[in-house]
Amino acid sequence: MEEIRIAVIGHGFMGHEHEKMLSDFPGIRLVGFADRDPSQLDDVRPGLKRYESDEALIHDPDVDTVLIAANNNQHHDLVIAAAKAGKNIICEKPVAMSVAQLDEMERVAKECGVTFTVHHQRRFDPDFQTAKNIYDSGTLGDVYLVKSSVYGFNGNMHDWHVYKSEGGGMLYDWGVHLIDQILWMFPGVKVQTVYADVRNVINKEVDDYFKILLRLSNHVTAEIELGTYLLTDKAQDKWFERHWLLSGNRGTAYLDGFEPEGKIVRTTHLLTNVQGERTMTAAGPTRSFGPPPAGTLVTEPIEIATTTHADYFKNYCKAAHGEEPFLVKIPETRRVLKLMDAVRESGRTGRTVDFES
Amino acid sequence: MEEIRIAVIGHGFMGHEHEKMLSDFPGIRLVGFADRDPSQLDDVRPGLKRYESDEALIHDPDVDTVLIAANNNQHHDLVIAAAKAGKNIICEKPVAMSVAQLDEMERVAKECGVTFTVHHQRRFDPDFQTAKNIYDSGTLGDVYLVKSSVYGFNGNMHDWHVYKSEGGGMLYDWGVHLIDQILWMFPGVKVQTVYADVRNVINKEVDDYFKILLRLSNHVTAEIELGTYLLTDKAQDKWFERHWLLSGNRGTAYLDGFEPEGKIVRTTHLLTNVQGERTMTAAGPTRSFGPPPAGTLVTEPIEIATTTHADYFKNYCKAAHGEEPFLVKIPETRRVLKLMDAVRESGRTGRTVDFES
Repeated sequence: MEEIRIAVIGHGFMGHEHEKMLSDFPGIRLVGFADRDPSQLDDVRPGLKRYESDEALIHDPDVDTVLIAANNNQHHDLVIAAAKAGKNIICEKPVAMSVAQLDEMERVAKECGVTFTVHHQRRFDPDFQTAKNIYDSGTLGDVYLVKSSVYGFNGNMHDWHVYKSEGGGMLYDWGVHLIDQILWMFPGVKVQTVYADVRNVINKEVDDYFKILLRLSNHVTAEIELGTYLLTDKAQDKWFERHWLLSGNRGTAYLDGFEPEGKIVRTTHLLTNVQGERTMTAAGPTRSFGPPPAGTLVTEPIEIATTTHADYFKNYCKAAHGEEPFLVKIPETRRVLKLMDAVRESGRTGRTVDFES
Repeated sequence: MEEIRIAVIGHGFMGHEHEKMLSDFPGIRLVGFADRDPSQLDDVRPGLKRYESDEALIHDPDVDTVLIAANNNQHHDLVIAAAKAGKNIICEKPVAMSVAQLDEMERVAKECGVTFTVHHQRRFDPDFQTAKNIYDSGTLGDVYLVKSSVYGFNGNMHDWHVYKSEGGGMLYDWGVHLIDQILWMFPGVKVQTVYADVRNVINKEVDDYFKILLRLSNHVTAEIELGTYLLTDKAQDKWFERHWLLSGNRGTAYLDGFEPEGKIVRTTHLLTNVQGERTMTAAGPTRSFGPPPAGTLVTEPIEIATTTHADYFKNYCKAAHGEEPFLVKIPETRRVLKLMDAVRESGRTGRTVDFES
C-alpha cells in the first residue's frame, strides 16, 4: 500500500502536534510545513520540507493530502485553494467560521473530486469513549443527564485564540469538540432545543465561559460547561481537566481527568426512607438530604477506554485507501457549526433556540 | 410585651420541628396541635392542647396565630378558615398549590384584617447567608454564575411528598426554598428568562430532579439543581448536602454542606499562559487545561454566617408587635409560585419562558 504524503499548513501548536504524531506514522509520510510566519519553521524537523508559502505547499506534486492547521479564519480560503489544486484535505476544527463558508468549501471539494474531512480527534479521547461506553451499556438505566465539562485556572486562552478576527474563543476552540462528542455519543438522536450562556469573563474579545444545555430526543439533557476561570483547590478531583457525569435511575457514573478516573455509584435500596430517621443538620431539619447511612452506597469500577488520537489517522489511512468510511463527515461538522450558531443566539437572547424538530 | 399564642395544624415532620422550636421560645407560647390523623397527636408534649379537629384549633379563643403545617394541598382551605376566624396566619411553604389559590387566600386575609406570612426559614440557612454575604461583598468581581444545589442518595422523598395530589414532589418541597433564596439574594433584580429540566427519576408521581437556570437582570445566571439520586462516593465534599458555587472575574467561591465549609479561590495572575508550557495529557495535547503550576492558586477563608432558623420566629415576634416588617411578604411568595409555574412549563416544553421584562 502506498504511503499517503501529507504536508501541513501551520507550524503553531497543532502543527507541532501533527509533526510529532505523523513523523513516524505507519502508512503516512510527512512531507513538510508551511507557515505565514517563516520564523515558525525554524524548528521543523530535519528531512522535512520548509515551504516558502502556503501556495508552494498546495502545489507540490509530492503532496497527496494537505492538512490545514492554520488559524481558524484561514480555513475557508486554504481548503478551497487546496481543493482546486487537486489535493485531498484534512482541516483542523472548527472547519469553518460559519455554515455558509463550509457549504462553499464542501461544494468546491466535490467539484474538484478531492476528499475533505476534519480533524475531530477528540472522538478518541479516552474520557469521552469511556463515557460513551457507559451510556451504551445501559448499566445506568434510563439516563436523564449527561454532563461534559472542562475547567481552567487562568482565563486560559493561547496565542491567536484571544482574537475574535482569527476565530478565537473557547466555543471555536473547545466548544466544537465538546459539541461534536455529544452528537457522536448519540447517533440518530435529534437536538430539540438549545439553551446557552456564553460569557467573556476574563477575555475582552472572545468567549471564555459557556454552559450549553441540549434537550435530546432520547430524553437525555446533555450539559456542556467550560470555564477558563472556574476555580477550586480540590486537587484530588483533577478539577482543571475534564469531567463527565452520567446520571440515570439505576446509578450515577463520574469520570475526572483526561486520563480518567471514576466510579459507577449505586444505592442498595431506593425510596425506603419514607419513615426513616430524621437527619438533623446545622441548618435545621431535613430528612431528604444528609450523609447516607453506612452501606447505602455501593461503587463499581469503570473500565477505561484505551483509544488514542493516533486512531484518527489510522482511520484516515484506511479511508484514503477505500477500506472504510472517513470517521468525520462534512454534514456532521455542518451540524456542529449550526449548533454553535444556535448557542451564540441563545447566549445573546437568553432564550432557547428550537433546533431539530 | 404579651406572648404570641401559636397553635399548629399538622403534627407531622414540620409540626414536630415547630414543637421543638416553639416550646420554649421567648415571646411565644405554644398552645397545642391539631392533626387530621389523631394518632399523630400521641406524642404531643405534655401541657400542650391536643385539638379534636382543625376547626376546634382555629376557633380556640386562646390562640392568636395559626401555624399551618398540614400537607401542601390543605394550605388554601386552612388559611381561609383561619382568616375567617380572625386568626393571624403563618403558613408553611409552598404557601399554595397555585398563584390563583394564593390570590384568594391573600384577599380573604386582607378582608378579615389578619396578618398572613409564610415560613421561609431557609432565608436564614447559614450556607445561603454566607453565599449572599460573599456576593454582596463584591470580592469576586463581576459574578456571572451562582449555583445552588442539593443532592440526595435514595430517590429521597418522605411521607406524603410522594403523592401528587398532596402537593408532593421536590419542586414544592425544596424548589420553593431554593428559588426563594435566589430571589432574596438579589433584591430588585428581575428574572428575565427561565429554563428548566424537571424529571421523575425514581418517583412515579412527582418530580425528584430539577435543574433551573434563571437569567437575571444583574447579568448573573442563577443555576439551581436538585437531584435525589445523583450519586458520588466523594464523601469529603459533603455531596449529599448543600452546595454553592459563585464565580466571578476575580475568583470563585464554593461552599459545601449545611454546616458549610468552603474557600474563595483566586489565581496570582491571569491570561499569562499565551506563550506558556504545553501541558500534555493522556488524551493528547492541550495548553489550556491541566494542573496549574505550583503557586498559581491562592485561597482565602470564608467567614461563615451564624444565622439560624430561630431568627425567623424572632422576626415574627417583632413584626407581630409592629416593631419591624414581616420577613416574608405575600407578593414574594406569589413571585416564587409564578416562577415555579414557569419552571414546570419550561420543563414540559424544553423551551425558556420569558418571565419579567
